[in-house]
Amino acid sequence: MFLSSIDNKWQPIIKKLESVLGKNGVVKRKDELLTYECDGLPQYRQRPALVTLPKTTEEVAEIVKVCNQYEIPWIARGAGTGLSGGALPVEDCVLIVTARMRQILDIDYDNQRIIVQPGIINNWVTQAVSGAGFYYAPDPSSQIICSIGGNVAENSGGVHCLKYGTTTNHVLGLTIVTAEGEILKIGGKVPETPGFDLTGLFVGSEGTLGIATEITLKILKTPESICVVLADFQSVEDAGKAVAGIIQAGIIPAGMEMMDNFSINAVEDVVATDCYPRNAEAILLVELDGLEVEVKNYKEKVAEICRQCGAGSITSANDQETRLKLWKGRKAAFAAMGKISPNYFVQDGVVPRSKLPQVLAEINQLSEKYGYRIANVFHAGDGNLHPLILYNGAVEGAFETVEELGGEILKLCVRVGGSISGEHGIGSDKKCYMSDMFTETDLETMQYVRSSFNPKGLANPTKIFPTPRTCGESANAQKTEYKGAIAF
Amino acid sequence: MFLSSIDNKWQPIIKKLESVLGKNGVVKRKDELLTYECDGLPQYRQRPALVTLPKTTEEVAEIVKVCNQYEIPWIARGAGTGLSGGALPVEDCVLIVTARMRQILDIDYDNQRIIVQPGIINNWVTQAVSGAGFYYAPDPSSQIICSIGGNVAENSGGVHCLKYGTTTNHVLGLTIVTAEGEILKIGGKVPETPGFDLTGLFVGSEGTLGIATEITLKILKTPESICVVLADFQSVEDAGKAVAGIIQAGIIPAGMEMMDNFSINAVEDVVATDCYPRNAEAILLVELDGLEVEVKNYKEKVAEICRQCGAGSITSANDQETRLKLWKGRKAAFAAMGKISPNYFVQDGVVPRSKLPQVLAEINQLSEKYGYRIANVFHAGDGNLHPLILYNGAVEGAFETVEELGGEILKLCVRVGGSISGEHGIGSDKKCYMSDMFTETDLETMQYVRSSFNPKGLANPTKIFPTPRTCGESANAQKTEYKGAIAF
Repeated sequence: MFLSSIDNKWQPIIKKLESVLGKNGVVKRKDELLTYECDGLPQYRQRPALVTLPKTTEEVAEIVKVCNQYEIPWIARGAGTGLSGGALPVEDCVLIVTARMRQILDIDYDNQRIIVQPGIINNWVTQAVSGAGFYYAPDPSSQIICSIGGNVAENSGGVHCLKYGTTTNHVLGLTIVTAEGEILKIGGKVPETPGFDLTGLFVGSEGTLGIATEITLKILKTPESICVVLADFQSVEDAGKAVAGIIQAGIIPAGMEMMDNFSINAVEDVVATDCYPRNAEAILLVELDGLEVEVKNYKEKVAEICRQCGAGSITSANDQETRLKLWKGRKAAFAAMGKISPNYFVQDGVVPRSKLPQVLAEINQLSEKYGYRIANVFHAGDGNLHPLILYNGAVEGAFETVEELGGEILKLCVRVGGSISGEHGIGSDKKCYMSDMFTETDLETMQYVRSSFNPKGLANPTKIFPTPRTCGESANAQKTEYKGAIAF
Repeated sequence: MFLSSIDNKWQPIIKKLESVLGKNGVVKRKDELLTYECDGLPQYRQRPALVTLPKTTEEVAEIVKVCNQYEIPWIARGAGTGLSGGALPVEDCVLIVTARMRQILDIDYDNQRIIVQPGIINNWVTQAVSGAGFYYAPDPSSQIICSIGGNVAENSGGVHCLKYGTTTNHVLGLTIVTAEGEILKIGGKVPETPGFDLTGLFVGSEGTLGIATEITLKILKTPESICVVLADFQSVEDAGKAVAGIIQAGIIPAGMEMMDNFSINAVEDVVATDCYPRNAEAILLVELDGLEVEVKNYKEKVAEICRQCGAGSITSANDQETRLKLWKGRKAAFAAMGKISPNYFVQDGVVPRSKLPQVLAEINQLSEKYGYRIANVFHAGDGNLHPLILYNGAVEGAFETVEELGGEILKLCVRVGGSISGEHGIGSDKKCYMSDMFTETDLETMQYVRSSFNPKGLANPTKIFPTPRTCGESANAQKTEYKGAIAF
């Protein structure tokens, strides 16, 4: 049922929603809706019909029930920082925005658990518990603005996920509202619960199974000591060998990041860290945490392995100030690309660690073939690549070509036994590559599972699953793609 | 369709199965079928109609297709060591036994992965990779006889799961055969794959979604140093405080096990370790692993915390021989109960760590109320209790009372925010307690998910999900419970 053309049909819906949320809880003015047209993937845009701002699980359930009654698609949105268009509206949809769901509901230090609402910003969790000596491990680059609800939807990663795992390893329980408006409590406060692991299934399901309204997270003790080692190399292969060598030595760094020459120079141009040698072909940033004696020992081992793999200079820092200085360039890498190029497109793929040198060489070949510069900044320890493709969006057809190039990189990842997404999700952006990774039967099974929670397909339709349109097709095809119930 | 009464109906089925598996691949003689009447929960028994012994994924798929065609329920069985009756046959079913699926298919040291068939014994994985300095972390007590396929079905734990997580944290990818005979490849060789986490969903689904035929496992580097600390206490509360203190100090031991006075004396009576003081109310075994410097430092901290919590003597061991000696009593605890009592019943529940002293006190009260001795041997670090209820099965009604007592313990676990199973699964044994932990809507959602893989309910019917029968009802009710398709 498409309602935009029958405006008077929206009146009873708005009335019902306002009776639940109050007038301030429903955004309906076109200019105010503009903010919600896209998330962190601005190349795709669609205005929603309405935005709702609930405060509680019960309010969310009421909104969903109204949507269900009128068969209106609805989409959950956290802070809107997602990079795969997971929170992109569809035509005539209702957005459920969690910006007013920012309560910390419970902290249990004895059992190292915190219960939060989904709108809480990732970094606030650590802030809330750091006084007692705890922190929340998953740290996406956007952690000062992204929401925990969004992290749950996308199974977000981050620098520290090499050692500590992505979001799914830190979510113990969820209260969710299904697409039919039912409230489910899945998982709990203890690590393992019997029956099917619905919590694990929900994390990373990108809003297609429902919306999380209360989230129980694991918090960890702040490590006694942290050290960052910076090493530079004359070839990406050597840096790759050092990565393999460190892991093979049984060391699991908290994080292990690589940047290539192009990225090094871009960040030095823009933020001038003066830490990264401009002539290095690659730098490696290795963060170690744990006991002081442990970190000291690992630091020496890491330095030794880097030297054996041909590292030039090796710097390390234990104090927070110098550590932040060493990280500054890496943290600013995406922003730096925005300064040296009118536009950039972040790709996100995973390859087995041992394939890193081969894949980086092939990405360089693709860069030359397509004529677009590609900067490589990535989580080397877990083989999670983030090639940044630089382009000028004002040039007609440029984005489409860049998308195609990005697609070639993803296909390369799949070919070497990797994955088309490490931590950004599939969303709207990558669904056409799902068939490169999964068989028809795989996707069909996922769709069956989806319909267990979301039988009419109203929760975040058109996301994750490939549709007949081909990858090159215009993003505006998105608009007319939602056809009510899931058909597969 | 019930086929035992119409024996000639089995002839074409046997013929089809033999054409796929050969004559040796189908067990049909009643005396040979006896072995398969129960798993590690011998109180429940049912003879299967046929046992099949496939060697490959394709053979498994063919068996399942035949079952599907004739609407015969089928049940996967590994080594048959499960403690919750997960591999218990139903009437007129086909068992798919993985005893001939014991190939290691691939080892990839660079990326720390191994691919195995499901019949491989847990301990063999470590044996296969230990020469290269690796091991497989999850270590159920039955690790020298249990199969990896069974571990996947039950999401098995073990002593080392405190630090390293249960089976689900170590399975990267699966080839599965669904209940319709379709072959799916889910997950992969890299840690994160997009779309729904079907691998995570499948692990712990107890054979109700299909059967895993190829399993990709993560292998870890063997730690440089291992140390075991043994401390004894004059009260369970003090030992509980030491557990909390160790975790609060930011130490994550590889394992942290507790035994109460009754268990200590039982094992000393039977295996005479001469390590555990008979007058101690509780002992704590703490295993630490990592770098030598790290382990040394943690050992001192653990000893200090134990002393502060009132520990009597503290012993520690780094060399393998002494470590094994310290562990000997713990490892022999279940067997010891079998020597001092005609029968025992192992319960498996989880409580938040902070509730351990309260819960142990209440278990003692229950023991007195029911008049059955209960030994407590458990994974203290993650609050995973294993109360062992001692009884004499020859006394009429004893098992039923013990089951009721076991049920009271599970309800207690749920009441304090815990779980009715830590690592043994729900199977046949605990399904009637599922409603204590989950709402109708939760269970209904799980059933919907189940039907995505298993629409006719043929794969391991009657397991996990509660049926209208009450908990006290005879185990033989099992026999007639399967009614074809899932009804809910």
